[in-house]
Amino acid sequence: MSHYQKLVQHAQKIANFNHLAAISGWDQAAVMPSGGNEARSNAMAELSVLLHQLNTQPQLSDWFNEAEQEHLSPLEKASLREMKQRWQHANVLPQDLVQAKSLAGSKCEHAWRTQRKQNDWNGYAKNWQEVVNLSQQEAQIRSEANNSTPYDAMLALYEPGTTTESLDIVFNDVKSWLPNLVDRVIDKQDQECVLQPTGSFSTTSQKSLGLQIMQFLKFDFNHGRLDESVHPFCGGVPTDVRITTRYDENDFIQSLMGTIHETGHARYEQGLPKALAGLPIGEARSMGIHESQSLFFEMQLGRSPEFINHLSRMASQQFNAHQDLAFSTENFRKLYTRVEKGFIRVDADELTYPAHVILRYEIERDLMNGDITFQDVPELWDHKMQAYLGLSTKNNFQNGCMQDIHWTDGAFGYFPSYTLGAMYAAQFMASMRKQVNVSEVIESGDLSLIFAWLDENIWKKASQFSTNELVKQATGETLNAEHFKAHLKSRYL
Amino acid sequence: MSHYQKLVQHAQKIANFNHLAAISGWDQAAVMPSGGNEARSNAMAELSVLLHQLNTQPQLSDWFNEAEQEHLSPLEKASLREMKQRWQHANVLPQDLVQAKSLAGSKCEHAWRTQRKQNDWNGYAKNWQEVVNLSQQEAQIRSEANNSTPYDAMLALYEPGTTTESLDIVFNDVKSWLPNLVDRVIDKQDQECVLQPTGSFSTTSQKSLGLQIMQFLKFDFNHGRLDESVHPFCGGVPTDVRITTRYDENDFIQSLMGTIHETGHARYEQGLPKALAGLPIGEARSMGIHESQSLFFEMQLGRSPEFINHLSRMASQQFNAHQDLAFSTENFRKLYTRVEKGFIRVDADELTYPAHVILRYEIERDLMNGDITFQDVPELWDHKMQAYLGLSTKNNFQNGCMQDIHWTDGAFGYFPSYTLGAMYAAQFMASMRKQVNVSEVIESGDLSLIFAWLDENIWKKASQFSTNELVKQATGETLNAEHFKAHLKSRYL
Ligand SMILES: [Zn+2]
Ligand SMILES: [Zn+2]
Repeated sequence: MSHYQKLVQHAQKIANFNHLAAISGWDQAAVMPSGGNEARSNAMAELSVLLHQLNTQPQLSDWFNEAEQEHLSPLEKASLREMKQRWQHANVLPQDLVQAKSLAGSKCEHAWRTQRKQNDWNGYAKNWQEVVNLSQQEAQIRSEANNSTPYDAMLALYEPGTTTESLDIVFNDVKSWLPNLVDRVIDKQDQECVLQPTGSFSTTSQKSLGLQIMQFLKFDFNHGRLDESVHPFCGGVPTDVRITTRYDENDFIQSLMGTIHETGHARYEQGLPKALAGLPIGEARSMGIHESQSLFFEMQLGRSPEFINHLSRMASQQFNAHQDLAFSTENFRKLYTRVEKGFIRVDADELTYPAHVILRYEIERDLMNGDITFQDVPELWDHKMQAYLGLSTKNNFQNGCMQDIHWTDGAFGYFPSYTLGAMYAAQFMASMRKQVNVSEVIESGDLSLIFAWLDENIWKKASQFSTNELVKQATGETLNAEHFKAHLKSRYL
Repeated sequence: MSHYQKLVQHAQKIANFNHLAAISGWDQAAVMPSGGNEARSNAMAELSVLLHQLNTQPQLSDWFNEAEQEHLSPLEKASLREMKQRWQHANVLPQDLVQAKSLAGSKCEHAWRTQRKQNDWNGYAKNWQEVVNLSQQEAQIRSEANNSTPYDAMLALYEPGTTTESLDIVFNDVKSWLPNLVDRVIDKQDQECVLQPTGSFSTTSQKSLGLQIMQFLKFDFNHGRLDESVHPFCGGVPTDVRITTRYDENDFIQSLMGTIHETGHARYEQGLPKALAGLPIGEARSMGIHESQSLFFEMQLGRSPEFINHLSRMASQQFNAHQDLAFSTENFRKLYTRVEKGFIRVDADELTYPAHVILRYEIERDLMNGDITFQDVPELWDHKMQAYLGLSTKNNFQNGCMQDIHWTDGAFGYFPSYTLGAMYAAQFMASMRKQVNVSEVIESGDLSLIFAWLDENIWKKASQFSTNELVKQATGETLNAEHFKAHLKSRYL
């Protein structure tokens, strides 16, 4: 057996254990009774230890060296590249740093769950200082291995190929026009009358509507499920994708769009090529590309006027509300494109969302590069919120720098993926429109042509190419934020 | 760290992976879409390989030798005994035999699923011959290690401490009175008029009734769930017990009692001592004792006149059938104690069930001991069915020797557990009645005193004592089938 083949077998073994981790994780979030949590957490921790051992087996270094000398097809070379990148990410850190960060992160995240409610920055900062410190060490070590800045090395964990240099250019451009655009749109929307659908919308009815939309979006129910969890997510494995949603019996509007978002993630996973299953090259390209698919579904498709026609029709039917003006297409369109300046990223609309991300990007970049300290964060947050959205978070930590889970356990470098996803989604749509009459297709109710484009250009390609290469093949250019800007202007002005 | 402590840590590691196997197995049976099956099977096979490696690590032999020299408390000694017994079961067979049997079993079971429908004994026999052959080899090797007969060595996998010698005595006694008792009861019941509840009983209503009964039986929903699957089972782990049932919208009677049966299994698991969690000594004692708990719930409690009062009341309420004579207590009692001679073990009633088990016991005993060959089985089956239940299975393989899954992959030695369970359940009830006024307690609707007895005498003890010792502590004697006989006579004559 060639060393390349040995690496493939090893990757498939890891994929098998990752499969069990994914299903146990879904179970824990979606169906496990709370009394099962301790034993489950122990079992999953045991699995993590095993996965770490598999990812860091000493013989892998030799196997990679040998495999690189072997005669490989272009696809095998790309597969080797992806296996090696994962292996490097897992092996560059000393074991004691990995453990220390995991411990400090768990401790900080756990305490944060109550500290946030109590607006307790000082308590939080005590734990968080250690998380930041260990993350800075991590970034330093990764930067030496990658020959990049510390923040770029963290970014590479989520968005390999994306650099601070390119993000600075893109995000600075957004900052130059976004605040003004937000103000103009809010002014304009001030005149509008929007009705909130009122009533009691049973979980059963909402679920049945959600399933109907998933069917409309050609979610493959032979390879996936819809369930409930407190924090909606897309989990499972490509042959069995588990998406979840959360129902509020007073409001179906948010949950419905949440289901559409997760369906986008799910169809990407379901569309990954079977022939590459179990290999890193067969996985989703990056967090940003993953989010581009969920946001394509949620923002590009889901909030298009033609799609909203379908949505309002299906919702009227489900809730027997044909006479209710709140269920009219016109009102649905307003509901789903309402812009507001708010404190909370996860509640933000399409237009203000980038401001939340850019703020976090700038802070985590400077934090990882050692240009600021953890103590600077609240004040910087306040200044940037004032500058980008005109809101003060002074002494309002719980709705400021303590609102997200990401930093509590040191996931620095993740936030840009959200806005990169929105930008890629707009760019994909612009390209798709050259080949597909998107409006007509949505109107027709059979969206196959749209999904065929995504399948051909994104899903099928998995991680065969770098993000830049993938985007270039699909759209003729690398990331170009002009498409996003044009999309926002056309939708909101 | 002492060697005993090392063994404990190792056992807990195995328990963690068994936890993941249990949850993935539940998921596969209860919620997984069928398209997920191939990848899931691969992942679970990978986990089996890992578990096998853990159970057969070469250093364990030394650890056991060393630990046996260490100073241990009585509880630790018992724990060591259970760990060693499991280790011996897993290590006595050569690896190639394990693999060959697993392969032959999978092949035979898979083909059996269609062959049974086609009554294709010849096709089945081709695969089954190999399963029998490999199982005979297994029994031979185990018998040498155990210094017992081959069949006793197989029996020890499910019912350690139970021997052919004791089973022959007990089962021969049953054979001496059962056929006659069955005939008398059937004669008597011939006069009765029994009404089958008719109508459509929605899955939702049946589930809600099932949940109500589980609550009545004090199933702990903080440590378990009720779901659906084609073949009802009790799975999961003690802190998160997953029971399943199957609904037929034309008939709720069987499914309801099935839920009660699985609740019995579940409460045993939920009642296992937390302090011994993750250790073999903390697990259920044996298959027979497990079945004694489910049958205690189903037969001793569930079919008692006082319990049937509650059942008929709850069912009448759930299905709004107060006026329906089929829902009367009297009719429910008749429904749930109806005796019929039938071909199929899983459809058999309490009274005829032992005949099905004894038949299988006698055949698998002689097969493992090499006294008969696989070709003798259909004819023996027919003869024994004629003798015990007066039915012929000549050329009716699908309802004869091809009806069960157990033998298709070589689980010889399992069948006696069912009837042992029924006998232990009757014996436990007889003892309990000396301390608890069972009828009054059931009538009162608060069954706590009954569960306290089971908890104290069975659940809490887990595998601290041998089956014989456990039964003796609980009832003052080892297995005594007279209690079972007395129970049947009192209920059915
Ligand atoms: Zn998303
Ligand atoms: Zn059972």
